[in-house]
Amino acid sequence: MSAKWMKTEILYGIHPVTEAVRAGKRDIFEVYVSKHLSSKRFDKIKKLISSLDINALKVRPDRLEEMAPGLRHQGICAKTGAFPYTGFSEMIERKKEPGQNRFFLLLDNILDPNNFGAIARSALCVGVDGIIIPKDRSVSATPAVSKASAGALEHARVAIVNNLANTVKILKKYGVWIYGMDMAADQTIYSTDFCVDMAIIIGGEEKGIRPLPKKLCDLLISIPQVAKIDSLNASAAGAVVMYEALRQRNYKNNRLV
Amino acid sequence: MSAKWMKTEILYGIHPVTEAVRAGKRDIFEVYVSKHLSSKRFDKIKKLISSLDINALKVRPDRLEEMAPGLRHQGICAKTGAFPYTGFSEMIERKKEPGQNRFFLLLDNILDPNNFGAIARSALCVGVDGIIIPKDRSVSATPAVSKASAGALEHARVAIVNNLANTVKILKKYGVWIYGMDMAADQTIYSTDFCVDMAIIIGGEEKGIRPLPKKLCDLLISIPQVAKIDSLNASAAGAVVMYEALRQRNYKNNRLV
Repeated sequence: MSAKWMKTEILYGIHPVTEAVRAGKRDIFEVYVSKHLSSKRFDKIKKLISSLDINALKVRPDRLEEMAPGLRHQGICAKTGAFPYTGFSEMIERKKEPGQNRFFLLLDNILDPNNFGAIARSALCVGVDGIIIPKDRSVSATPAVSKASAGALEHARVAIVNNLANTVKILKKYGVWIYGMDMAADQTIYSTDFCVDMAIIIGGEEKGIRPLPKKLCDLLISIPQVAKIDSLNASAAGAVVMYEALRQRNYKNNRLV
Repeated sequence: MSAKWMKTEILYGIHPVTEAVRAGKRDIFEVYVSKHLSSKRFDKIKKLISSLDINALKVRPDRLEEMAPGLRHQGICAKTGAFPYTGFSEMIERKKEPGQNRFFLLLDNILDPNNFGAIARSALCVGVDGIIIPKDRSVSATPAVSKASAGALEHARVAIVNNLANTVKILKKYGVWIYGMDMAADQTIYSTDFCVDMAIIIGGEEKGIRPLPKKLCDLLISIPQVAKIDSLNASAAGAVVMYEALRQRNYKNNRLV
């Protein structure tokens, strides 16, 4: 299929563009670099894409402004193919190393690209097997999310599903435990066993997880708080729970196992 | 001193304004609410400030735009006194409950108000004794930080110091252990003892902690990462390390102690 018939996106910012190139997962048609970018940075980008069949064009800054109006493009944009989602079946069928438990992340009602981006970045750091988002009630994997993730999104496996509740049911059939983050839950993340095949559902800051997926959770868990005024933001909560899972899996008795 | 001679600030957004009122720490002179705000929300705010000598004025939306141009004010602003910093001596002399260890947070090179705000929110959730920022190389406790913290900043004890390295030296004299976050450190947060009087230094995403305060750290510690492409963002890293400290202090053997 020729490039001009495909849905294209404008990625913007140094990290999204360079990580998209490094990840090699999505089509990259052209890279546009501001004339005002330092030649050191430009050379670095040229070098990065030199092995690939991609043009790097020096353009006037206002051209970048047209492509990414009002966005922090840092003097670099790229015309790319759409974000390469992973199929949910492929994600769940993917083999793990023997002895390794699965770790999925489900997002519900996460509407803020900054939250999704920050969560995707943390998810990549802890090595989750995949992020699953519903088609509705969620920001999709847009260039703004890639920017907020400092390009981590480009390496992440993200599946988009029609119905999160159905997805939860399928995961349960595969023997995956479903843990829902709920600030009102009595059980904390510290008394939760993450050394099993499991999926964590994180809800949006305003409304949390929707009733139906919430009802399907095997367990609702909370992050304890000393101050009672407000909950952690969604991306901080995501980082804390994912790292507690990593700690339990990899750091028994404070030592790497 | 009469209000008109004091340095005033414009707080914007529902959480910053309501939490400033609840915290009762800074002067609030007037609250401005958009005519277009729902009467339910307006009544809630009226009720909140009814016991205080503060006017709530309904204004045209463009008046709020003038006060907080281009900012997400959500139809509410307040004219307030400057952020009420806590003195460093007061912070360090403050008595703790018997058996409780101190917990300070030092920020160096954190220039992004969103990062400072998110860190302040997490710090409040884990109950840190105080946040210490240097006068230079740090965003100060601005309305943008309050907004990014969802108002948590209004409840936080924040000290601003001339020289972070000197502050570290004083903390050490008080028997406070200094842990510096450094992604290159071999020792992880999971093999670090947080059940002592301690301060954690978090550096900015680009440059980390400056050489002098870094040299003064008793220990450099890292958050382990499965993926090697990039580090956690500063606010996620802050949430993870602060919660590991809370876990070690309050959840021995996964139970609340």
